[in-house]
Amino acid sequence: MAKGQLSMNLATTRGAWGFAEAVDGCLRHGVTAISPWRDQVAAIGLDEAARIVKANGLRVTGLCRGGMFPGVDAADRQKRIDDNFHAIDEAAALGADCLVLVVGGLPGSSRDIAEARKMVADGIAAIVPHARSAGIPLAIEPLHPMYAADRACVNTLAHANDLCDELDGLGIALDAYHVWWDPDLPRQIARAGRRVISYHVCDWLVPTTDFLLDRGMMGDGVIDLKGLRKLVEAQGYAGHVDVEIFSASNWWTRDPDEVLRVCLERFRTVV
Amino acid sequence: MAKGQLSMNLATTRGAWGFAEAVDGCLRHGVTAISPWRDQVAAIGLDEAARIVKANGLRVTGLCRGGMFPGVDAADRQKRIDDNFHAIDEAAALGADCLVLVVGGLPGSSRDIAEARKMVADGIAAIVPHARSAGIPLAIEPLHPMYAADRACVNTLAHANDLCDELDGLGIALDAYHVWWDPDLPRQIARAGRRVISYHVCDWLVPTTDFLLDRGMMGDGVIDLKGLRKLVEAQGYAGHVDVEIFSASNWWTRDPDEVLRVCLERFRTVV
Repeated sequence: MAKGQLSMNLATTRGAWGFAEAVDGCLRHGVTAISPWRDQVAAIGLDEAARIVKANGLRVTGLCRGGMFPGVDAADRQKRIDDNFHAIDEAAALGADCLVLVVGGLPGSSRDIAEARKMVADGIAAIVPHARSAGIPLAIEPLHPMYAADRACVNTLAHANDLCDELDGLGIALDAYHVWWDPDLPRQIARAGRRVISYHVCDWLVPTTDFLLDRGMMGDGVIDLKGLRKLVEAQGYAGHVDVEIFSASNWWTRDPDEVLRVCLERFRTVV
Repeated sequence: MAKGQLSMNLATTRGAWGFAEAVDGCLRHGVTAISPWRDQVAAIGLDEAARIVKANGLRVTGLCRGGMFPGVDAADRQKRIDDNFHAIDEAAALGADCLVLVVGGLPGSSRDIAEARKMVADGIAAIVPHARSAGIPLAIEPLHPMYAADRACVNTLAHANDLCDELDGLGIALDAYHVWWDPDLPRQIARAGRRVISYHVCDWLVPTTDFLLDRGMMGDGVIDLKGLRKLVEAQGYAGHVDVEIFSASNWWTRDPDEVLRVCLERFRTVV
């Protein structure tokens, strides 16, 4: 079974590096695959980002991120769909392997999560044709249930699988941080099979002190990362492994060269 | 369909009131059902707490809490089982309707959540006979997945239902805060049927700023509490509704008489 190489999600070095610095840093450490964020691409300009990617022969394993479909009214939802069209075009310009979708939470003051979930399905359906014609696979990322209200109302791999059943042409981005707790995970990874087109890692710290920005370096938390990767790769996944660590008070404050060194070391030993 | 009355979970007034003050406060507001915590009972003494309950004709809808089964070795696990025997005896002395079980997370430095879950099943199996002979129903409470590592590794109603299938004599404590996000919830409530013997409410705030102690007053968050209660009561649940709000920086700092007034008002209008 082929095992994937590390791809550096540029969120991990967000504390100190923009797009160009991050690419230089990755190359210094022998990392030739990246997964950038749209704001990082926008800051340097899409054309320049695409030029850097091409000039250095980089693999772009995913663009983060599209999604955020639920809106307070039809016009708001259409605006969000339009933004996803742009995200698909940006992913195509960068030659990305996929566009990662973080689907959005409850719109406005809504308490109707079933309705928000319907807006997500409708929103994805609305962008699938454009993604297909642009040659960009869409990867829905189920987020941890603690983000259900304000970030993503698709919170289990089972739900992502249901959406894939419903929406032809949808793939899955699986992030260990979001799904490690799920007792149904082995069964749902088997059900997902080759739908998993992007695999992300970091670690769950105990205690965790911030809902968004206190994710751990692999090995510093409680996730059985080797076990989880084995389940994913047993389904034939041979793509890269995205290292994505949001860590405002720890890793984002460190020398990013140190961060890369530790990521690469931990990738070899615990992922 | 009978609708349950409010029971005051004494966590809600923990900021200012011990057991005796909380009982006095509840009675001032016409609340005659409570759900105390073991440390609150211990602080006044079990005999005195039982005397107060009896003298005032209070309904004790649940004792919080037993559980915490996973341990680092057999001796540690046995110590935890023994503590549950004491919890059952305390629940019996108070005439409680049930003992709520928060099952515990990963023991020590373990990353094996499947093994922790096995320890939970084994631990519950070990205390069922004592609970049965004491006449105390056990209510397993699935906790939000964000507590999987350090508080409870049973995180969905589906998993609680699986344990009930496996362990004769186990009931369920359903807390809106922990399960509201679950797309499988309506189906699992129907599957649970009369297994739900305790129902808790508070609300999920956006944003939530603390993993444990930033729960919201009903109506201040995003949970569809009326909809959820309807699903539970459609299965024949006619028991009390426990109001349980952990709120270190808001409700625990207020005059508890105000907290009770607001709880009762919101209970009438949004639960």
